[in-house]
Amino acid sequence: MVSHDVIKSLVVQNDAKILLVVMDGLGGLPINGKTELEAAKTPNLDSLASKSVCGLTHPVSPGITPGSGPAHFSLFGYDPLEYEIGRGVLEALGLGIQLNKSDVVARGNFATRKGDVVIDRRAGRLPTQENKRICGMIQNHIREIDGVKISLNPGKEHRFALVLRGNGLDPALSENDPQKDNQKIRQIISLNSEAWRTALVVNKFLDKANKLLKNEHPANALLLRGFSSLPDIPSIKNLYKLKAVAIATYPMYKGLAKLVGMKVLECGETLEDELKCLKEKFSSYDFFYFHIKKTDSYGEDGNFKQKVKYIEEIDGYIPQLLDLKPDVLAITGDHSTPSLLKSHSWHPNPLLLCSERCRTDDVKKFSEKECIRGGLGIFHSVELMPLMLANALKLQKFGA
Amino acid sequence: MVSHDVIKSLVVQNDAKILLVVMDGLGGLPINGKTELEAAKTPNLDSLASKSVCGLTHPVSPGITPGSGPAHFSLFGYDPLEYEIGRGVLEALGLGIQLNKSDVVARGNFATRKGDVVIDRRAGRLPTQENKRICGMIQNHIREIDGVKISLNPGKEHRFALVLRGNGLDPALSENDPQKDNQKIRQIISLNSEAWRTALVVNKFLDKANKLLKNEHPANALLLRGFSSLPDIPSIKNLYKLKAVAIATYPMYKGLAKLVGMKVLECGETLEDELKCLKEKFSSYDFFYFHIKKTDSYGEDGNFKQKVKYIEEIDGYIPQLLDLKPDVLAITGDHSTPSLLKSHSWHPNPLLLCSERCRTDDVKKFSEKECIRGGLGIFHSVELMPLMLANALKLQKFGA
Repeated sequence: MVSHDVIKSLVVQNDAKILLVVMDGLGGLPINGKTELEAAKTPNLDSLASKSVCGLTHPVSPGITPGSGPAHFSLFGYDPLEYEIGRGVLEALGLGIQLNKSDVVARGNFATRKGDVVIDRRAGRLPTQENKRICGMIQNHIREIDGVKISLNPGKEHRFALVLRGNGLDPALSENDPQKDNQKIRQIISLNSEAWRTALVVNKFLDKANKLLKNEHPANALLLRGFSSLPDIPSIKNLYKLKAVAIATYPMYKGLAKLVGMKVLECGETLEDELKCLKEKFSSYDFFYFHIKKTDSYGEDGNFKQKVKYIEEIDGYIPQLLDLKPDVLAITGDHSTPSLLKSHSWHPNPLLLCSERCRTDDVKKFSEKECIRGGLGIFHSVELMPLMLANALKLQKFGA
Repeated sequence: MVSHDVIKSLVVQNDAKILLVVMDGLGGLPINGKTELEAAKTPNLDSLASKSVCGLTHPVSPGITPGSGPAHFSLFGYDPLEYEIGRGVLEALGLGIQLNKSDVVARGNFATRKGDVVIDRRAGRLPTQENKRICGMIQNHIREIDGVKISLNPGKEHRFALVLRGNGLDPALSENDPQKDNQKIRQIISLNSEAWRTALVVNKFLDKANKLLKNEHPANALLLRGFSSLPDIPSIKNLYKLKAVAIATYPMYKGLAKLVGMKVLECGETLEDELKCLKEKFSSYDFFYFHIKKTDSYGEDGNFKQKVKYIEEIDGYIPQLLDLKPDVLAITGDHSTPSLLKSHSWHPNPLLLCSERCRTDDVKKFSEKECIRGGLGIFHSVELMPLMLANALKLQKFGA
């Protein structure tokens, strides 16, 4: 992609509305010859594809399987290799924690130790309820260390996020998690001349917490990794002159949208809730990030049938999206999540982009196989934003 | 694209002849289901496409609409993001002005002022004749300031190019054009430590010229922007070992060719004139940039029918091009100019490349839609030059 500086110099504000629908983990792999999207009956998406320009996108680059963070950043027009989001920050976003710019966050595991050695990094995949109890217990005893507020936020099973809030904190810290069982717990040290105070606070916290966990079993140790702060990111408003809003149900995606400066709406839990919200707010913004989660969840579960069924359900809602008459409508995934693999994968995302100014191609069905022949070819997701802006006539000519 | 250093290390000179035909603004958008190129009857181009390898090219990157400068630089094998051409230089090239390396050029508008405020940035789109008269009047009074030669060159309507010629000039100047009506005219100041003398000369010029315009109406002010000098560009001879010649009718394209060190022929005004010229000179060069302007002009006019007709006319001349037996023939646009948009656009260019060594594909018709399926795929125009060189066996193996 051209640099953000170039893009910024070309962007103009106008009233055109862009709707980006992200079916999380949409792309699949064939089982019995067809991917989930190919197996689904999607008359509305197919009809739309035939009026659109289609293509396939790589979230990062060929062969690279992205996490949700990089995959979404790319869709929002931020090179995921340039703007990295720390693991700690992602964990916190996923838990719906409101972060300040100066916070330092780590991803944590409850683990089982024997002396200095970790014998189970996940404390037997601690039940989530136990996790909550222990986090609460520690939090009751430790609120602040050396003027730094400490907040321990339980996640699922053995996972938690540790948030440090105060002045002069720095995330340049080593990790105490040895990443393998039967290894010594490591020392957390500062990795630059600024982070020594943060290291001190973290080590004091660990000392205190470990004492509190002394008689717990199996969760008698804390492992911390991915110390990070909110990345310094130009906002979508500043970069693209967009008044952007996110409609999503999961904390992680709301958090990612907030990172790039989108307004985040509280819409409810279901696809119907999201649609209602979109309709209500459609006059108030000019960029809509509309996130649909469950395509990914069914893929992660390896539930081919349910993923197919859910895609068909989404297809039923397409006419309501079209009724809003967005000037530019793009429908794609953030990454593939083939049921066959039960995980995110590196396979490129099917994409359609519809506007009065798209140059249609011969694609008549919205599917991975058909999109190969699309007029956008196979390209990087990060180029989608300039394409959407261009189709909304929000980009001026480069050079004379 | 690989770097110029790598390309340079691989290029060898031989007698093979490359003919690059640029149908300016060729690409279109469908009206009634067909683009201009698709609506045109082009038996010769279609037959050629079926013997060629085809593709689509982005002049800059997806979504970016290029001006003629960047679009052509890309076709000549120069990354348009690396080699930027200043607005002043482009205006001067468009007017056919011969520039020296040390000249500083600005693009100018005659405008209407009231006190310090611009009330019409275009002086009511001054008639071109008036522009000429006023430029002549100022020029009669101002020839030189502090040893710097001043030349005022009228363009169309309110536009002109100001050329400063002398020693030690530097284009790092701010602009006095506020870019919007009803704003104060700005001060021109130097933006680095070298440009203070140039700023002084420009401000003295403006003082004198404004006094001369005191009783003029509506053109009683001059706005200057895009101060620039010829970019420092390695010549096509030096980079690609090509003896290159440009056959074009419009000053802008002749100027762009000259920028990269092509010989520019004076050929006349019509396509027939250009063809005659090409035939006469075909034995004397090994790279021919053959520019056809009117496809773009009809696109800019929104004249779908005339663009179609003109493409058909060009098609009629293809056999004469083939009679010359170029070793490599590439036919493409510099950018798209869909009649539907009446302007340059971001849509990629249809391209065919024919040589004894091209790997043909299934494309049987030269059109945007067919070229999607071409063997070259969708790629950046800047890669065309290495492809043409390779097909002419002018590139050695990279590495052993």
